[in-house]
Amino acid sequence: MDIYDWRKKIDEMDDEIVRLISRRAEAAKAIGALKRETLAPVYEPDREQSVFNHVRAVNQGPLADSEMQHIYERLIDVMRTLQKREP
Amino acid sequence: MDIYDWRKKIDEMDDEIVRLISRRAEAAKAIGALKRETLAPVYEPDREQSVFNHVRAVNQGPLADSEMQHIYERLIDVMRTLQKREP
Repeated sequence: MDIYDWRKKIDEMDDEIVRLISRRAEAAKAIGALKRETLAPVYEPDREQSVFNHVRAVNQGPLADSEMQHIYERLIDVMRTLQKREP
Repeated sequence: MDIYDWRKKIDEMDDEIVRLISRRAEAAKAIGALKRETLAPVYEPDREQSVFNHVRAVNQGPLADSEMQHIYERLIDVMRTLQKREP
């Protein structure tokens, strides 16, 4: 496979990654609504830590656990903003 | 569904997201090897821009395009580090 072929494959994977992140965002929105109902805080550091632990546990490389967590830190950041925004 | 149920679903989605990001990283490694063979630079701003454009084009919400790109900026950052590292 040449670089062009790999990039085509990456674009296909990105379709799927974007779709999954969007589904995850819908779930985060649903949780945000439940938090509002129960007056629970949006920022829950224990839950965020447990997401990072989970992600590190299922990661099998080639990225280091710290690199996968680095990506997830940004993802969780964006999800937190979404939970605060949505009515 | 209560918060616990949603979090179980999110954990399952994260399994899949981590798996896909790992497959994407394998493809980036393969491209890194091809770049080394051809002495092409790792950093290719045009390709990175085209990834962002693609991601924004397939994004259907609930995240804003700029939020999805924000996640991808971190992802691409990590992939670039991987391409530089791997022999």
